[in-house]
Amino acid sequence: VAAAVRTFEPRDPDWDRKVRESFARQPFTQLVGFQISDLQPGRMELTLPMRAELTQQHGFAHGGVLATLADIASAYAGFSLMPPDSAPLTVEFKLNLLAPGKGDSLIARGEVLKPGKTLTVCETRIFAIDEGQETLIGTALVTMMCLMGMKD
Amino acid sequence: VAAAVRTFEPRDPDWDRKVRESFARQPFTQLVGFQISDLQPGRMELTLPMRAELTQQHGFAHGGVLATLADIASAYAGFSLMPPDSAPLTVEFKLNLLAPGKGDSLIARGEVLKPGKTLTVCETRIFAIDEGQETLIGTALVTMMCLMGMKD
Amino acid sequence: VAAAVRTFEPRDPDWDRKVRESFARQPFTQLVGFQISDLQPGRMELTLPMRAELTQQHGFAHGGVLATLADIASAYAGFSLMPPDSAPLTVEFKLNLLAPGKGDSLIARGEVLKPGKTLTVCETRIFAIDEGQETLIGTALVTMMCLMGMKD
Amino acid sequence: VAAAVRTFEPRDPDWDRKVRESFARQPFTQLVGFQISDLQPGRMELTLPMRAELTQQHGFAHGGVLATLADIASAYAGFSLMPPDSAPLTVEFKLNLLAPGKGDSLIARGEVLKPGKTLTVCETRIFAIDEGQETLIGTALVTMMCLMGMKD
Repeated sequence: VAAAVRTFEPRDPDWDRKVRESFARQPFTQLVGFQISDLQPGRMELTLPMRAELTQQHGFAHGGVLATLADIASAYAGFSLMPPDSAPLTVEFKLNLLAPGKGDSLIARGEVLKPGKTLTVCETRIFAIDEGQETLIGTALVTMMCLMGMKD
Repeated sequence: VAAAVRTFEPRDPDWDRKVRESFARQPFTQLVGFQISDLQPGRMELTLPMRAELTQQHGFAHGGVLATLADIASAYAGFSLMPPDSAPLTVEFKLNLLAPGKGDSLIARGEVLKPGKTLTVCETRIFAIDEGQETLIGTALVTMMCLMGMKD
Repeated sequence: VAAAVRTFEPRDPDWDRKVRESFARQPFTQLVGFQISDLQPGRMELTLPMRAELTQQHGFAHGGVLATLADIASAYAGFSLMPPDSAPLTVEFKLNLLAPGKGDSLIARGEVLKPGKTLTVCETRIFAIDEGQETLIGTALVTMMCLMGMKD
Repeated sequence: VAAAVRTFEPRDPDWDRKVRESFARQPFTQLVGFQISDLQPGRMELTLPMRAELTQQHGFAHGGVLATLADIASAYAGFSLMPPDSAPLTVEFKLNLLAPGKGDSLIARGEVLKPGKTLTVCETRIFAIDEGQETLIGTALVTMMCLMGMKD
């Protein structure tokens, strides 16, 4: 649904550093191999160069790879708006796979739809980049929880 | 929901071999490192020994790992009931994370809820095994599509 | 997934009365017309006699009717386990429609999968009863939140 | 996620009439009481004046009402792009409830994210209108199936 880009106010002045540090401490994220390509309050973009070991039996990006991108892009979009001394927890997510994940790289754009004190709902769109062309290959809704009084 | 164990009739006499061969051709599945620990018509159980590189920032199993298990256990439970000359495709799935994925290994049990000509709906329950104790850590609903006239 | 029937301990001795009273105060539930046919800690069964105004264009039960049943059966299964002075809130749900809703009545069975202090995850299976035969027509995962310090 | 408004090409020249006629033949839609306030290829907007019998126990719009709006706005957005001699079927949907449904009316905007031969994935955003102010109260992902060779 088309909309003007929305601006969010972070509640933690240290949001950028805390998000990047938490991201860097995720071993599975490193195993899959994606990187933060953009980070703003309430928004995270991830980029993943494709390689053979991320595919399923037909040579396309594996659904588990897309799910990981969907979860992480939304989780950290949400975490960027959480207050100091809190940790993010993914409650649940739903992913629709829209087209084969075929191309040189994948891009996942996570965005907060509704920030909240306890729960934050986010959305991630995933695109495959093939010869410079972006194709929407997945979309996800993600519910995050803010755990207070807990260092991430 | 408690229920008697349901029995399914495979439509492909070669279902066991075709499921195992397709599973073995998934590079990402091998990167994550899980194995088939049980396979029956309409049912697949996967076992994954935990290791550090499958975790998130708190040392628990990563949501993307659980999503991969949920997808694959359901996808192949569904594929086991599909006719010859067809390929399985995950349409969408939804995963609830119920407890921290903490333990020596994870077990995912996928099961067909409703087989169909075009669409098959499956469920995966995921358990963490910690010192011999099983804890339910995730549950997923998965919609699969049967692509006819296509070798998997 | 087959399992032994699980028993839950209510945290509010007054759980039965509070659930039935809250249910009775839902105008939309009365408009749709379903009744509680069974209530136990962590479980609710609803029964809905079918009638023409609950159908879609092909004469089957409307998806919105199934969604309402799925939400309510799970919501009150969850509420039955919540402490005194709390109110239930549906965070999100996902419903798979498995077969046409055709018959004399619908039955929805909601059950808690994972009770929690803040979040409770539930499942509802929906059946159509046609000439005494039960057919599974829908399944849902539902995430509930417990709002503390608030009378329902 | 902000994006330019996308344009869809209907495959049935009679799309507008067939969508409105099918909509008018849904008894449950009439019981709930919403109307089509905008219809374009791949898009449907519904408007529902609020009334007491559509509420839950706290006086807000019932989750089942939002689910019905989410399903129908997406279903007919999808149907508008389907070829002649086909009927739409909702496969599944997932709805996040983001804020209390409080106001004079509700608006649901359904939109096709990915049209397909067999499956079409859509999204509905739901808003409450309170004293002229729109608040996002729900968002849903909906998977539709096109049943060929069947008059709706």
